[in-house]
Amino acid sequence: MKIPKLVIVGTGLIGSSIALAAKRRHLVERVIGVDQNREVCARAGVLGLIDEECSELAEAAAHADFLVVCTPVDTIAANILTAARACRPGTVLTDVGSTKANLVRTIEDSLPPGILFVGSHPLAGSEKTGPAFANPELFDERLVLLTPTARTNPDAITRVRAFWQALGAGVRVIDPEEHDRALAMTSHLPHVAAAALAGILPVELLALTATGFRDTTRIAAGPSSLWRAILQDNRVALLDAVVRLRAQLDEFAQALENDDGPRLAALLEQGRQI
Amino acid sequence: MKIPKLVIVGTGLIGSSIALAAKRRHLVERVIGVDQNREVCARAGVLGLIDEECSELAEAAAHADFLVVCTPVDTIAANILTAARACRPGTVLTDVGSTKANLVRTIEDSLPPGILFVGSHPLAGSEKTGPAFANPELFDERLVLLTPTARTNPDAITRVRAFWQALGAGVRVIDPEEHDRALAMTSHLPHVAAAALAGILPVELLALTATGFRDTTRIAAGPSSLWRAILQDNRVALLDAVVRLRAQLDEFAQALENDDGPRLAALLEQGRQI
Repeated sequence: MKIPKLVIVGTGLIGSSIALAAKRRHLVERVIGVDQNREVCARAGVLGLIDEECSELAEAAAHADFLVVCTPVDTIAANILTAARACRPGTVLTDVGSTKANLVRTIEDSLPPGILFVGSHPLAGSEKTGPAFANPELFDERLVLLTPTARTNPDAITRVRAFWQALGAGVRVIDPEEHDRALAMTSHLPHVAAAALAGILPVELLALTATGFRDTTRIAAGPSSLWRAILQDNRVALLDAVVRLRAQLDEFAQALENDDGPRLAALLEQGRQI
Repeated sequence: MKIPKLVIVGTGLIGSSIALAAKRRHLVERVIGVDQNREVCARAGVLGLIDEECSELAEAAAHADFLVVCTPVDTIAANILTAARACRPGTVLTDVGSTKANLVRTIEDSLPPGILFVGSHPLAGSEKTGPAFANPELFDERLVLLTPTARTNPDAITRVRAFWQALGAGVRVIDPEEHDRALAMTSHLPHVAAAALAGILPVELLALTATGFRDTTRIAAGPSSLWRAILQDNRVALLDAVVRLRAQLDEFAQALENDDGPRLAALLEQGRQI
């Protein structure tokens, strides 16, 4: 697999890491970066992560062979559709959004014929942001979830799978709705819990924290605007997950209230096993 | 400071790390290990972390100049008092318990005259267990909290402070009740949250977790029996902390229910700042 022109839309941490990984693995001839934030795009250029900056998504898309949208989830569908209308038939489009059901539906409802799209979600990231933290090994031995539907062109799946595998990742196919329910539990709920734990800590107690607190709340340092969009997009599944967490905390509270050692040990053991 | 005979009661991860750190820093002439679990003590001996094993706490205490109890919190008070009754006047005793109010009160109510005791809590640890994971740098640049009361002999504070500083740690004095309220928020609540998050994850979703889930739940891998004792001993302050976390989760749930982006962003930002 060799991609003549790879277009990265959104040259932040994930987009820049894809660009760098693709270059290092000789998967691409040329990488074009597009970012609404000109400074971020220029920075990716200065760092040599992209070969060319382009201020217009439609213009970049017109020359793309493969295009990846790495913008916040609430802008992905619009960016994919703008690109889809501008690009040549046969161009492959994907995204890296942390939620999938809504955006895949919106995109597939309006996708022009001949354009190959399938949603992707690499289970890799960082609480850091920006091209300065680009990591060419970010996808190495990590899992990327592809979320095709009955309407997805099988060629899109084949080519997007090959793309992620070329970056070192494993690939698994999952239904978009199932993806969102699963990620509510494995990613979005942990983020809410970390943000809640950090948010209620009186600042004067920060000096009394150790690695336990820091690990448990590390992901809460991620950018609020990106996570706001993710949580809001997956609000139905996430609400269900929050309810489950509250119920489990109630179990802990009840065991503490009753000074019930065996019950407390059983609840701890349930978590330890996982 | 040079300790002729250091007795370590409980030669697990923390006790073995203290022994190793004290040896490496030439703080001690001889380390005697005591552990109810003979195998754990023998292992610490084989690894060269202690110089001598002793099966009887009272016997070891009789020869001690400085003694540190590193057993589970529900056995610390009894071990300190057994040692206190057997040791010579002037011997310094401390512990590494994660809770302080109850055990300090119990100990000070029965401490024989002439015995120097002050409670310690090093804010350092690991989810790993046993002498095989002993780490001589475990206390380096970490904070140790000392919890004296009005009844504490000032010499005990001076000597226990010097001990931890000699192991590379910083020392801060805090009231035992205040310690327990603070640690409920900085350590015990994060443990409950991590155990709850892990405990409710359906096992088939484990494959879809990434570093975010792993970091957030890492501490839940700690030994259930040790944590059961800690949480139970601090149940009043911890219950209050659990109630605060539930209230914050309710805020998130309400923002999700109302599809209230600005509120969600504000809650995330509150956590991000900390």
